[in-house]
Amino acid sequence: MKKLKNDTFLRALLRQPTEYTPVWMMRQAGRYLPEYNKTRARAGDFLSLCKNPDLATEVTLQPLARFPLDAAILFSDILTIPDAMGLGLYFSQGEGPKFERPLRNEWEIRDLSVPDPDNHLRYVIDAVTQIRKALDNSVPLIGFSGSPWTLACYMVEGGSSSDFSLVKTMLYNRPELLHRILDVNARAVTAYLNAQIQAGAQAVMIFDSWGGALSHAAYHEFSLAYMQQIVDGLIREHDGAKVPCIVFTKGGGLWLESIAGLGCDAIGLDWTIDIGEARRRVGDKVALQGNLDPAVLFSNPEAIRAETAKILASYGKGSGHVFNLGHGISQFTDPENAAALIDAVHELSKPYH
Amino acid sequence: MKKLKNDTFLRALLRQPTEYTPVWMMRQAGRYLPEYNKTRARAGDFLSLCKNPDLATEVTLQPLARFPLDAAILFSDILTIPDAMGLGLYFSQGEGPKFERPLRNEWEIRDLSVPDPDNHLRYVIDAVTQIRKALDNSVPLIGFSGSPWTLACYMVEGGSSSDFSLVKTMLYNRPELLHRILDVNARAVTAYLNAQIQAGAQAVMIFDSWGGALSHAAYHEFSLAYMQQIVDGLIREHDGAKVPCIVFTKGGGLWLESIAGLGCDAIGLDWTIDIGEARRRVGDKVALQGNLDPAVLFSNPEAIRAETAKILASYGKGSGHVFNLGHGISQFTDPENAAALIDAVHELSKPYH
Repeated sequence: MKKLKNDTFLRALLRQPTEYTPVWMMRQAGRYLPEYNKTRARAGDFLSLCKNPDLATEVTLQPLARFPLDAAILFSDILTIPDAMGLGLYFSQGEGPKFERPLRNEWEIRDLSVPDPDNHLRYVIDAVTQIRKALDNSVPLIGFSGSPWTLACYMVEGGSSSDFSLVKTMLYNRPELLHRILDVNARAVTAYLNAQIQAGAQAVMIFDSWGGALSHAAYHEFSLAYMQQIVDGLIREHDGAKVPCIVFTKGGGLWLESIAGLGCDAIGLDWTIDIGEARRRVGDKVALQGNLDPAVLFSNPEAIRAETAKILASYGKGSGHVFNLGHGISQFTDPENAAALIDAVHELSKPYH
Repeated sequence: MKKLKNDTFLRALLRQPTEYTPVWMMRQAGRYLPEYNKTRARAGDFLSLCKNPDLATEVTLQPLARFPLDAAILFSDILTIPDAMGLGLYFSQGEGPKFERPLRNEWEIRDLSVPDPDNHLRYVIDAVTQIRKALDNSVPLIGFSGSPWTLACYMVEGGSSSDFSLVKTMLYNRPELLHRILDVNARAVTAYLNAQIQAGAQAVMIFDSWGGALSHAAYHEFSLAYMQQIVDGLIREHDGAKVPCIVFTKGGGLWLESIAGLGCDAIGLDWTIDIGEARRRVGDKVALQGNLDPAVLFSNPEAIRAETAKILASYGKGSGHVFNLGHGISQFTDPENAAALIDAVHELSKPYH
């Protein structure tokens, strides 16, 4: 296997020495880029773009053509698994993802089964293969999935929710039904991420977007336990290289010790936590990824530079830090400000290595 | 002054011994109660209800007629102050609060001034006076306000926001403008809460609903610092009795030590933190108020009892705990489940005192 030209990101995740702090941005292939919007218009809509490996490859590479990013991330959606389970994913204008057939009956939950990644999710696996080829070993490719709990939120609510009333009613009224959904989801995510790894993903990330909506006890029982099941079942070495695993619970700053205990390689942090404090809490168990408030990118290059400097200083000397936003980049971001961020990370981080 | 028949709530806030754990519910006078909806229909709309002291008194007392609650809370809105500043508060169907004239220009910010509570907020002060009279010393009355940062979010965004892009753009691009708004807000909140105390509020609570949207550093600079200004200026003793002050930052679990350092008497907790862990972190500096996920009230009396028992056990023995939800009660709650919660707290807490 050919060697990566830039493996800084992978070394940082494994807490090995690097020359600078690597950086990528969640949702870096997205609507803030005019070239992305052109490709999306050609595809027709977001879901058609996800399901077309040629176009998914094209948009995955777009931010890398603009910025000296240290990693690429598969262009896809976190809800491909429930779609492959037959729930009928669609996107309605301005309302985010929805399911045509959300889980509302006991028999629907009993009948759920793990989709075969090489069959119903073939388009994702093909995209991973094509992207790896197109990247030509320039930077590593990150694969990803939604967490079992986050998938369950959408599967039960049928779309986005402000209070998660349906899935939480199930959690407190019929926990065994929710556990059944979560177990199927955990097995599905494990198979899906392993298929991505076998197709060429060099690191994987689990997005637990809604873990932070749970109580302390419910988070451990209904989200963390199923991420544990995934981490335990992941391929951790492939093609002669370690495949690091990142777990990101948005709003999970109170539970870092528990997340570090999963045995993952890195924890994604949102912007509410001081990264130096996070480092003190997890010690040398895991690397940390984050954590600039994406709203900082609404400001100007000087302010972006100053906020970036604060995060680098708070993390301090040594490896184990991957710079990122604390959440996906907003569609209203000026690409020039994203460029300023990436330059600032590369330049200002050198004295810490 | 006549003695309160039930001062359990006030004693718990001051960490004095009580016979059981007192309980009230955020938004306890609200849309889950049919009698509230009837009064609101008579008023015409929510804002007319807030602005009519007779009707505000009526709805404040409604939950106390149904449930053996240990405190009453003034029925009002957190956005009365910016309305009194002339921003024109209104409520559009299903979209929450909005302002007709949000702050969008520098001169509007320069021209902001502190409203006189006895003039433009007279209706609130009159409501406090009337409610105290109607309560007839049965249980204490809580006064409240939004925090300076939370008010600023609405004043700049013009309504609710999912990403706070306008106010955060100001924060990072023109921090001096935001500091100007926050300073006016802090002085306004101080005067407003002190007027409520002088009219009879026996405890006050600051609702920092959106502090949790900030980064660690920005929270301290743009929310906490202005709550400090308020706490420093509050009347802490009135009519021969201490007036405890509660600070509630939703999503503020990472910053409990900082909040405890304000010199407030109690911290409100949302449901994401384990209350026992919170108690270990703040030690004997403050009392704690919380923290059941309001979604638990969607379940059934047995589950409500079990979840209540967990929180009481986690807090453990001794005083300093006021039971509450971690956020306002949902309009979709069955009042029978609220009754089950209050009974469970009273009954199950006795062994801890």
